[in-house]
Amino acid sequence: MFQEMANNLLKGKKGIIFGALNEQSIAWKVAERVVEEGASIVLTNTPVSIKFGTIQELAQKTGSIVVPADATSVEDLEALVDAAMEHFGGKFDFVLHAVGMSGNLRKGKPYQKLNYDFYAKTLDVSALSFHKLLQTLYDKDALNEWGSVVALSYIAADRVMPGYNDMADAKAVLQAIARNFGYLYGRKCHVRVNTVSQSPTATTAGQGIAGMDRMLSFADETSPLGNASALDCADYVVTLFSDLTRKVTMQNLYNDGGFSSVLPYPEMKE
Amino acid sequence: MFQEMANNLLKGKKGIIFGALNEQSIAWKVAERVVEEGASIVLTNTPVSIKFGTIQELAQKTGSIVVPADATSVEDLEALVDAAMEHFGGKFDFVLHAVGMSGNLRKGKPYQKLNYDFYAKTLDVSALSFHKLLQTLYDKDALNEWGSVVALSYIAADRVMPGYNDMADAKAVLQAIARNFGYLYGRKCHVRVNTVSQSPTATTAGQGIAGMDRMLSFADETSPLGNASALDCADYVVTLFSDLTRKVTMQNLYNDGGFSSVLPYPEMKE
Amino acid sequence: MFQEMANNLLKGKKGIIFGALNEQSIAWKVAERVVEEGASIVLTNTPVSIKFGTIQELAQKTGSIVVPADATSVEDLEALVDAAMEHFGGKFDFVLHAVGMSGNLRKGKPYQKLNYDFYAKTLDVSALSFHKLLQTLYDKDALNEWGSVVALSYIAADRVMPGYNDMADAKAVLQAIARNFGYLYGRKCHVRVNTVSQSPTATTAGQGIAGMDRMLSFADETSPLGNASALDCADYVVTLFSDLTRKVTMQNLYNDGGFSSVLPYPEMKE
Amino acid sequence: MFQEMANNLLKGKKGIIFGALNEQSIAWKVAERVVEEGASIVLTNTPVSIKFGTIQELAQKTGSIVVPADATSVEDLEALVDAAMEHFGGKFDFVLHAVGMSGNLRKGKPYQKLNYDFYAKTLDVSALSFHKLLQTLYDKDALNEWGSVVALSYIAADRVMPGYNDMADAKAVLQAIARNFGYLYGRKCHVRVNTVSQSPTATTAGQGIAGMDRMLSFADETSPLGNASALDCADYVVTLFSDLTRKVTMQNLYNDGGFSSVLPYPEMKE
Repeated sequence: MFQEMANNLLKGKKGIIFGALNEQSIAWKVAERVVEEGASIVLTNTPVSIKFGTIQELAQKTGSIVVPADATSVEDLEALVDAAMEHFGGKFDFVLHAVGMSGNLRKGKPYQKLNYDFYAKTLDVSALSFHKLLQTLYDKDALNEWGSVVALSYIAADRVMPGYNDMADAKAVLQAIARNFGYLYGRKCHVRVNTVSQSPTATTAGQGIAGMDRMLSFADETSPLGNASALDCADYVVTLFSDLTRKVTMQNLYNDGGFSSVLPYPEMKE
Repeated sequence: MFQEMANNLLKGKKGIIFGALNEQSIAWKVAERVVEEGASIVLTNTPVSIKFGTIQELAQKTGSIVVPADATSVEDLEALVDAAMEHFGGKFDFVLHAVGMSGNLRKGKPYQKLNYDFYAKTLDVSALSFHKLLQTLYDKDALNEWGSVVALSYIAADRVMPGYNDMADAKAVLQAIARNFGYLYGRKCHVRVNTVSQSPTATTAGQGIAGMDRMLSFADETSPLGNASALDCADYVVTLFSDLTRKVTMQNLYNDGGFSSVLPYPEMKE
Repeated sequence: MFQEMANNLLKGKKGIIFGALNEQSIAWKVAERVVEEGASIVLTNTPVSIKFGTIQELAQKTGSIVVPADATSVEDLEALVDAAMEHFGGKFDFVLHAVGMSGNLRKGKPYQKLNYDFYAKTLDVSALSFHKLLQTLYDKDALNEWGSVVALSYIAADRVMPGYNDMADAKAVLQAIARNFGYLYGRKCHVRVNTVSQSPTATTAGQGIAGMDRMLSFADETSPLGNASALDCADYVVTLFSDLTRKVTMQNLYNDGGFSSVLPYPEMKE
Repeated sequence: MFQEMANNLLKGKKGIIFGALNEQSIAWKVAERVVEEGASIVLTNTPVSIKFGTIQELAQKTGSIVVPADATSVEDLEALVDAAMEHFGGKFDFVLHAVGMSGNLRKGKPYQKLNYDFYAKTLDVSALSFHKLLQTLYDKDALNEWGSVVALSYIAADRVMPGYNDMADAKAVLQAIARNFGYLYGRKCHVRVNTVSQSPTATTAGQGIAGMDRMLSFADETSPLGNASALDCADYVVTLFSDLTRKVTMQNLYNDGGFSSVLPYPEMKE
């Protein structure tokens, strides 16, 4: 199926993909799709995720290398960007940030009883890491003119969904960072920075969220087009990395089957 | 240049393009680009615009037919959709709505001294025509599953720009219609409906707006990526007509170089 | 209860209240509350609503006069404003616009099968009437410096709720008019213009909407504070007519118990 | 002037006011106004701000006590809430959070060269402190039914203003916290939580921001009603602490003379 879909949209482009744990991961699908569209990639994840996931399989499939990095460590990010520039023989074109983790979610600390060390860590891993990444790229002048950076967000950044806990705050900062850094990177060399606010997706990370199954099916029923899958997200990210969206920046873009624009209420399915 | 850019993204797709007056028109660029990407099209405009513009030249260039229609007339829209279905031998896949006109703007009636006949006409031409189009398509079941409809909007729908006059109200309704009909059309057969909120663009229509030149250059300076051109818009619309954005619906999507996310202030260029 | 609540917040202020049909009406509660807070008012409604409602009772209770007017008629609005200025002996301070009607809703024409004469009328009655009112006030210089105008809106203007039909489009224009005219009226003489986006409310008008009961109870359950009642709305409008909110303008303000900020989903009540 | 304005709107209510450094502070004006409206208050600030500011003068003027607290310390917040409950003889009704600080701003580190220790501190002081405050209040059940909590925000949370640096991200989290905690506190006991997005204001804190003077005058010219002053803000906060706004929660409310709804462009002042 993929080969039929491929249009060489990213021919000759190069980039880094964060966050591919296993084949359920959105990042995994993005990696597959961008390579099908002609791109070369470097994969990265934390050492722990590399160990417990199956990223090496993806690396083989996509002809890419894996560079371990903790996205909260500026040192690691610098080494990663250096490694990518060496691998690509110079600047590159795109980056996907798909990184998030909440100790409060994992340990069942609800939003009114947060552990503040976990809270700071949630923000650092899930949001400040995006600033660190952008600052490293900017500082090293690692991206080509009209490059494109995308981070994955979720509608809980904008409206309240109690089960999402402190990740909602983290995604709100993430979206702010995309706007604020997108301004500066656009001025510097026309790099664009956007977030994709994706339907709830059945990934390994998503499974940590209480009531995820019911949330998934509720969103799926509410959205006139149904939920966007990981593959739908990958397709959309392909357009954002391509030259066809060169003037789209500093936006939070919903890829959610229409969910964000609907007020669910009892009458709606009749 | 175009041939290099073409990726066969719309191979085998068919659609109607409203509003190509002359080669400055955004709709003109969309027509050229979708054909380059493999689509077949039907062009339409009002009889007056067909007479004073150069749409026949575009028809030749793109191998398409021109069907005159007044977008405020349900009868004309029905005839247009019938003609398109006959031309294509069945259902089709996409429609671009690029239609707008304000008698108040043309006659220099400012927003605090509106002529109410003109005001009703502004809304009818620039917004209700979109509902009439969607209702006609829906009623005739003219669009394929996962079809895509795009209308052109402008940020004055969302924030105040005095020079844009009653067109601002019309674009606000247009965006509401995209949301409200997008819900129903999505439920019916997965057709998606979006608006693209485009940078101010130097088209013949745009020239009617007082202070357009200064507005254009102001937006261009404020936007970190500069204004999106008509061609940039056409590229973006190609992605929205393609299968890569199948779960994006009921959205107002800024294609504006970042302008919508910026608070211009005196410091910003330093 | 009312007397205890009264704080003389509107002492010496004068204004016009549209749309009080009977004691279920939000406008009725606003009329009572502003008078309790020290204001003098003129009541208005269409001749038909005056006949079938109980507005004369409200006039007696609040010591006010009733001036019939069709809000879509500029002539009627001019006569109304003249009558109010004569009654008050000069300029006045506030206006409440609570006017809306949809023939499509009444006749059961769903949004994908609109009657376009009804649609134009929905927009004229429910939205353009607000522009006509503001233009008449502006033209006659009828409002004091720092005057305040409020219109009632509903969240269906911003997100899709199928049952609300073409009223959703009308409320979207209404909000645009508040912004666009608010800009001009603020520049002219510091008059502010806002919309209040109110919880669904069990008024006579609301009863026309299919599934209203279920919508009301759904919103009430979803909102962490429960639905705002007509009296809650009146209290809020009092603050917007007072001098305590003099720099708030061109806003759509939710008075909805938090509903607008919530993503209802199955887990939420646990 | 104040006495004339007072309407006893907060008669019998009690609350805590954070952040009154000196008489330029917004919090100072809020303290004065809520007391004029009949409230009793406890003042708080960091020990350093208490030393360098003039809060004791305000305490005398308003008949209140001062309890030092570092808003990032849960221990300090617990002691503060205990002291307030003891002072008031039980639960209280409102809290103003006016707390913010950025080491990056102070040390001239621009947004593309952030010091990450400063960044974490900016978020902790300016945003996470709000969560800590709410969690402490919630945990100790310190607020009466229908209590009201307000935090001060700024439009840079929503749109890019480069000079505001990492404070923009902090305000984005602050607004998210208001939404997310407002949901839970509303469900628990009808406490409402909102942010006020205020015009740029000439406070001591504001003076730290590069180009503040030009930003102030630009916003003042752009806003149809001019900038909201600290006193305007205090008046608005009075309405939000009063019983007249009991169903308003989880909102970000602009008190900015209309600035947030305007697209400034060269034509606009003609």
